[in-house]
Amino acid sequence: MLIPRIHFHDHGPKVQQIVDAFARAIEHGELTAGSKLPSVRELGVQLGVGKFTINEALDRLRGQHLLTSHQGRGHFVAHRQAQPSSSTWVDLLPQDLLSVLRRPTVSGQGDLRPGGGHLPEDWLDSDALRQAMRSVVRAPSLRIAGMGTPAGLLSLRQALQHKLQGDGLTAPVEQIITTPNTLQGLDMLLRLLARPGDTVLLDAPCYFNFHANLALHGVKVVTLQRRPDGFDFTALEHLLAEQRPCLYLTTSVLHNPTGHSFSAAQAFRLLQLTRQYHCHIIEDDLYGDLHPNPPPRLAALAGLEQVTYLSGFSKTLSANARVSYVVAAPQLAANLTNMKLMSGGVTSELFEQIVYRLLSEGSYARHRKRMAQRLLEAGGRVEQWLRRCGCELPMSHEGGMFIWARLPAGVNGERLAQIGLKRGLLLAPGALFGYDAGMRDFMRFNVAHSDDPQVWEAVEGMLDQAH
Amino acid sequence: MLIPRIHFHDHGPKVQQIVDAFARAIEHGELTAGSKLPSVRELGVQLGVGKFTINEALDRLRGQHLLTSHQGRGHFVAHRQAQPSSSTWVDLLPQDLLSVLRRPTVSGQGDLRPGGGHLPEDWLDSDALRQAMRSVVRAPSLRIAGMGTPAGLLSLRQALQHKLQGDGLTAPVEQIITTPNTLQGLDMLLRLLARPGDTVLLDAPCYFNFHANLALHGVKVVTLQRRPDGFDFTALEHLLAEQRPCLYLTTSVLHNPTGHSFSAAQAFRLLQLTRQYHCHIIEDDLYGDLHPNPPPRLAALAGLEQVTYLSGFSKTLSANARVSYVVAAPQLAANLTNMKLMSGGVTSELFEQIVYRLLSEGSYARHRKRMAQRLLEAGGRVEQWLRRCGCELPMSHEGGMFIWARLPAGVNGERLAQIGLKRGLLLAPGALFGYDAGMRDFMRFNVAHSDDPQVWEAVEGMLDQAH
Repeated sequence: MLIPRIHFHDHGPKVQQIVDAFARAIEHGELTAGSKLPSVRELGVQLGVGKFTINEALDRLRGQHLLTSHQGRGHFVAHRQAQPSSSTWVDLLPQDLLSVLRRPTVSGQGDLRPGGGHLPEDWLDSDALRQAMRSVVRAPSLRIAGMGTPAGLLSLRQALQHKLQGDGLTAPVEQIITTPNTLQGLDMLLRLLARPGDTVLLDAPCYFNFHANLALHGVKVVTLQRRPDGFDFTALEHLLAEQRPCLYLTTSVLHNPTGHSFSAAQAFRLLQLTRQYHCHIIEDDLYGDLHPNPPPRLAALAGLEQVTYLSGFSKTLSANARVSYVVAAPQLAANLTNMKLMSGGVTSELFEQIVYRLLSEGSYARHRKRMAQRLLEAGGRVEQWLRRCGCELPMSHEGGMFIWARLPAGVNGERLAQIGLKRGLLLAPGALFGYDAGMRDFMRFNVAHSDDPQVWEAVEGMLDQAH
Repeated sequence: MLIPRIHFHDHGPKVQQIVDAFARAIEHGELTAGSKLPSVRELGVQLGVGKFTINEALDRLRGQHLLTSHQGRGHFVAHRQAQPSSSTWVDLLPQDLLSVLRRPTVSGQGDLRPGGGHLPEDWLDSDALRQAMRSVVRAPSLRIAGMGTPAGLLSLRQALQHKLQGDGLTAPVEQIITTPNTLQGLDMLLRLLARPGDTVLLDAPCYFNFHANLALHGVKVVTLQRRPDGFDFTALEHLLAEQRPCLYLTTSVLHNPTGHSFSAAQAFRLLQLTRQYHCHIIEDDLYGDLHPNPPPRLAALAGLEQVTYLSGFSKTLSANARVSYVVAAPQLAANLTNMKLMSGGVTSELFEQIVYRLLSEGSYARHRKRMAQRLLEAGGRVEQWLRRCGCELPMSHEGGMFIWARLPAGVNGERLAQIGLKRGLLLAPGALFGYDAGMRDFMRFNVAHSDDPQVWEAVEGMLDQAH
């Protein structure tokens, strides 16, 4: 078998160059489906690289389903499917983004994870959660055969109503609809609110899955820089007037990745402009519960006709507790309930009951306070460490999980992350959160995972090599 | 306040006529948002109907979010949302269908449910399920902070691979992808395989959510009658040649609602034709495990390049056990995994571990056999009863949950179902499963819920009134 010839260059790791060359050859039919690859040793000899590099490249190609392997029989080029029609969304995404989407979930649990998007398990109130799970499973009231109610378990929605009231957001229980997770809540809202070709405004930087999910809906994305002072509001008005986005999707409090929260004054300015230009806001509030003293939410200020609110418990309870919720104007809430039924976006009553218990017994409120305080303290220490390393911090840490740091001059975030992965260190380079070249100088740090001398030592030992 | 004038006719219950009239008046702006309705007593006087009828109509209008009520202050016309752009899918659905989607889930648990889509709770192996839930919750291996692996828990997928092998379907574990439920699995597949304007073939009759979900994707639906001999295959060939559907979505074994299973010979004929006309099949196998001796699945006969397979445990374990799975060709399986990440269609590792335990310990296999036998016996008794009532049964019951019965001449299924609802009896009239006028003469019976003299008495007492 002829394998692709590779002229290695210096602009990236050899592993990726091998993966790219093989992927291209398979795509173009030069390597035909079903054909067997030479052995690892032979490939290493032919390409002039070590066994370790070959094995890693083969792993990635298997991960992309371009190769299959059979125990003891070697590697084979995978058969591709003849699809009746192929969608375009895959083409819309940079391949990097897809690999990013997978990275935090596939990488081992034992690694150091200063770039992770969750709290460490020992920060979560696992005991209370397991206790609630056990009680619910034992309770005879659990309807094993039941599907749950379309809008969500009523007692949970009442508890959410009470919780929201504490944050200044008053809504009838009919307008609080549970969803299996926050991203799916967003996905269903976009199916209801956006059409292909619509323009949607995002923060730059922002959570990478916002870009990924919007690509599914075929909308045009425009971005504006999220800054310590909110926005350059003149630029925002210009953008709203010129580009006419029908939606603005944002994380208002403890924004991912910058940690920024709109102050009341910034929120007011923002809401005035979006109202003027008929731009509806979807407010993602996944992190607000981690703020020690959160500013008012956009939905609380402007009401549900202008802002649809979205939150959940994947960051504060467990990524396994699949209960999120949307608070929306009456008609949208009714449509969302139908969308749940039509698209299979229904929630599990088992989880709804678990979260209901934690909310109603008050243990969630205590847990939320404890976490917010602990994050605030860890954030202070991580800020000091980052400054010692020569990082610049555009936003001062006011709580929550994330710090957005400009790396010391000359350090390339992507490079740093690649070196990290090899050493079992998960990092979140700025390029994951936006496409501007400027993002490459930044990195997102999770303060709970980064408040750790082991992480400090590991990162400091890599900085020199990532120029 | 002026309320709509209603000239009651005899073609449906007064409650619905009141609901329709008010909904229209609200839609057309004759009843303005925020305005207060007269009291229940006054409404009754003005419309010339009883308090019970008014209260039921108000309940339904509240359920449709057209009215709101405030304790002690009466009923008000709800405020509607100004949406940035409104989707068309709601318009594509008959309002009846939406109310159907909600009906089985909202109606009380204590009712008689001969039309239900699930097994009664005491038929499910609740003890084994609760036991598995308890073990998983107790196990230290449960990763509270983890998100699960994108393609699904590997040990579960290996157990599924083994189970599938028992049904003659051999697939590498990389091509078995878990989804939160079967409908969402289908929804994600359609996002990958169908484009707006594509034509999709469905059985007539078929599961109502297939119509609902396809409406979300903007495809054109064509149907062909599912018959005891499979299809009129000449008509099928004609349809394939003329309409060129790119997909055929079907339940091959124990079809909902008819209970029909394609015999090997019928399947062979079908697969030959769909291959010839390049029509890909999505095979829903949600009920196959309830068949005492299932015929070969389409995917097992034709392979995954021609057929994508979809199944789950909502009917055999618990609607709360949110684990379904797709078996697909390599590229489609990889795309589906990405789709899970991009759309929030990820599965819960908690449920994956529960189902894994039940599969690996063998209790699921025993449970499946027991249920299949029990359904076969109940089906015989229900068939006898239906024939005694004057029903015709086009398909003989070979197992599973459903019997499709032609009602005695002159009996209107919709009417029967409406009378049933008033008496706490959930029925599934044929009109739910297809739009042809012929469907109105049919009704779907759930044999597990219908093997009950109380149901027999209740239904027999209603037949005379439903002409």
